[in-house]
Amino acid sequence: MPDTHPRVDGARILEDLNALRGLGAYKTGVHRPTFSEPHMRALEWLAERLPGAGLTATIDGIGNVLGTSPKPGPKLLAGSHLESQNYAGWLDGPLGVVYALEAARIINPDPTQYGAVEVAAWCDEEGHFGHFLGSRSYVGRVTEADIDAARDRSSGRTMRESLRDVGLAGRARLTAEPGRHVGYLEAHIEQGDTLESRGLAIGVVTSIVGIWQYKIGFVGEQNHAGTTRMEVRKDAGLALARFCVAIDERFPALSGPRTVWTTGRITLDPGAPSIIPGGAEMLFQIRDDDPAVIARLEHLLQTMADEVNAQGRCSVTVERLRTGVPAMMESTFQQAIEAASAACAGGRSMRMPSGAGHDAQILATIMPAGMLFVPSIGGISHHWSENTTDADIVTGAQAFVDACRRILGG
Amino acid sequence: MPDTHPRVDGARILEDLNALRGLGAYKTGVHRPTFSEPHMRALEWLAERLPGAGLTATIDGIGNVLGTSPKPGPKLLAGSHLESQNYAGWLDGPLGVVYALEAARIINPDPTQYGAVEVAAWCDEEGHFGHFLGSRSYVGRVTEADIDAARDRSSGRTMRESLRDVGLAGRARLTAEPGRHVGYLEAHIEQGDTLESRGLAIGVVTSIVGIWQYKIGFVGEQNHAGTTRMEVRKDAGLALARFCVAIDERFPALSGPRTVWTTGRITLDPGAPSIIPGGAEMLFQIRDDDPAVIARLEHLLQTMADEVNAQGRCSVTVERLRTGVPAMMESTFQQAIEAASAACAGGRSMRMPSGAGHDAQILATIMPAGMLFVPSIGGISHHWSENTTDADIVTGAQAFVDACRRILGG
Repeated sequence: MPDTHPRVDGARILEDLNALRGLGAYKTGVHRPTFSEPHMRALEWLAERLPGAGLTATIDGIGNVLGTSPKPGPKLLAGSHLESQNYAGWLDGPLGVVYALEAARIINPDPTQYGAVEVAAWCDEEGHFGHFLGSRSYVGRVTEADIDAARDRSSGRTMRESLRDVGLAGRARLTAEPGRHVGYLEAHIEQGDTLESRGLAIGVVTSIVGIWQYKIGFVGEQNHAGTTRMEVRKDAGLALARFCVAIDERFPALSGPRTVWTTGRITLDPGAPSIIPGGAEMLFQIRDDDPAVIARLEHLLQTMADEVNAQGRCSVTVERLRTGVPAMMESTFQQAIEAASAACAGGRSMRMPSGAGHDAQILATIMPAGMLFVPSIGGISHHWSENTTDADIVTGAQAFVDACRRILGG
Repeated sequence: MPDTHPRVDGARILEDLNALRGLGAYKTGVHRPTFSEPHMRALEWLAERLPGAGLTATIDGIGNVLGTSPKPGPKLLAGSHLESQNYAGWLDGPLGVVYALEAARIINPDPTQYGAVEVAAWCDEEGHFGHFLGSRSYVGRVTEADIDAARDRSSGRTMRESLRDVGLAGRARLTAEPGRHVGYLEAHIEQGDTLESRGLAIGVVTSIVGIWQYKIGFVGEQNHAGTTRMEVRKDAGLALARFCVAIDERFPALSGPRTVWTTGRITLDPGAPSIIPGGAEMLFQIRDDDPAVIARLEHLLQTMADEVNAQGRCSVTVERLRTGVPAMMESTFQQAIEAASAACAGGRSMRMPSGAGHDAQILATIMPAGMLFVPSIGGISHHWSENTTDADIVTGAQAFVDACRRILGG
């Protein structure tokens, strides 16, 4: 069927995104930490625009912005976040908020369109103060004690002090009204290069991967780096390096097509140039959306540790610090995004898991959820040079709004 | 020829060493940092005993203790140090001082023995404030500005403040009188397990190895640990781990019989569990007494770096931070120690380089120098459990005093 609905206003979308880029601009990106002055201006910027999309705006007691619609019929919640990582990109967060705003602008005033889009900007998705505090508050999983305990990782400032400074202390926190929404839809840049490298425009997110995190500790024998012969050393640092290389060699055979693993931190003890390290530790992370794959890899990790322990020179222990729970995206939402891609992007889409965490994984615990990705140039993310072509931004918006329509139905 | 000289007093030597162990005792070792109260008591303990060995005691303006003899004839300087590493062993330092004291007690009053032994305890060999400050002051290589700049690594306290607190501020610093000494002799625990593992009693030190130190830096591409596929990663931490393992595999073929190498510190940048390290750095050290061996290994290091750079995924740079200068021990002193070992230890000696630094390497810059090692149980060093059997301590003292006699001649 021909698309008879009004198309998105590409110029307006780019203007909105650039307006947000102007708040806390840093090179071609932004520096807009949670509760910073530019972040608060971004929240107000959104709150001022929501009425133009037929929505009543509220900034709640944890810094979430919500636009609610009086329109009868089903309601789809859509959004993302407005704060940034430090000195990071302009699209990570704002893209999803502006797409949601555009969808509300087009769908809500349209009497021929059944239902409405409600817009959300979740506070602190980037984790300056915690772990998805805004969206977790909305789904009822943040207590007052959690807020008491939250502190800015950079400044050490408490969340209570920050909320008071920005004038949000004492406001109620909004929580989801059971049954109000048919689901939640979020758009985001991919933050990887899969779409770009295949010449695709839309990623249909199947799941948000879980993160399993491990502390792998090595114990050898601390000794003098000058007087201890090579043959008798028990160098915990060298044991760690060998383990890293062995992971790199042995993991691929047992991993899934999108499994990733990372050693993000290494510490040697005591860490002095003239002392053979007696201890060493690495923080190791595996991400996948299939717990069966993780189970295989965790077993391999333990087997490798057993092998090192059997050699008897250094000992290794593998401790799981964090157990990931993948969030599955609603299959009907995936179908809606795929159909929208066929209609608006020449079918240049593929299904893929999200390797990064998003507010959608929190919303998915209480309602059906879906996510749509647009390409990231060079796969760059969490850096001020992060970017997406204007054409991809507009195509993504068209597909997003079309997917909203398909989910609302009618 | 039968040994007609008086033998050392083993009980007196062990009593002296245990008296020093009582100053700052920690488990079976000591905690006696430079200018701590127990360290100052140890300096005074020595100064009080020197007159009994026919020596005039001085504690100078940098905390060196020196005992000088009025006896005519050649003079041999002998000693070691009295401060300890933090929570470390009882013999590292005191052994050499007590051997020197014992040699002076036996040789100086003996009218049949030509010449005298003068005793030194060099301050801060363990480097709480700097790099061999006491012995370097004695050979004229420490300026007042160096002292102004010196600070305790642990407390940050300046050396000037510490000197004032312990009552040494304003005292003159003693320096070597050209031509006064025929040389310097120092005894020390081996700090390795070579002697013990071969059932030997005496190590005849041929040289004190030089330390070459390198900063090896890796540059990859910092990226998101969830969204970046394994195939496109440029993980600087993994490149570092591979380099460590490659060193371990390739160095042995080009190293000398006693070469040692150590990666003492590893840092990943930014060092966060969810970020692929874009940078990584290791502090790497090679020790040998043969610059030709070092030249080969440094060339190999650069070849390995070139290979990584040619692969093009991550780049590596090798920067030399410190260039070692091995100190050669005087050959006639080595012969004297070997002959003493034959006479006093049944010839159970071997020649070996010292992998650790000692004040002898500083004295060797202005006079002939020699060193004698006694076995370390289990090769343990810089730990409170460091130890040597009483029998080995007494045998070592006998060989030391005999070597002093042979060096003084007459």
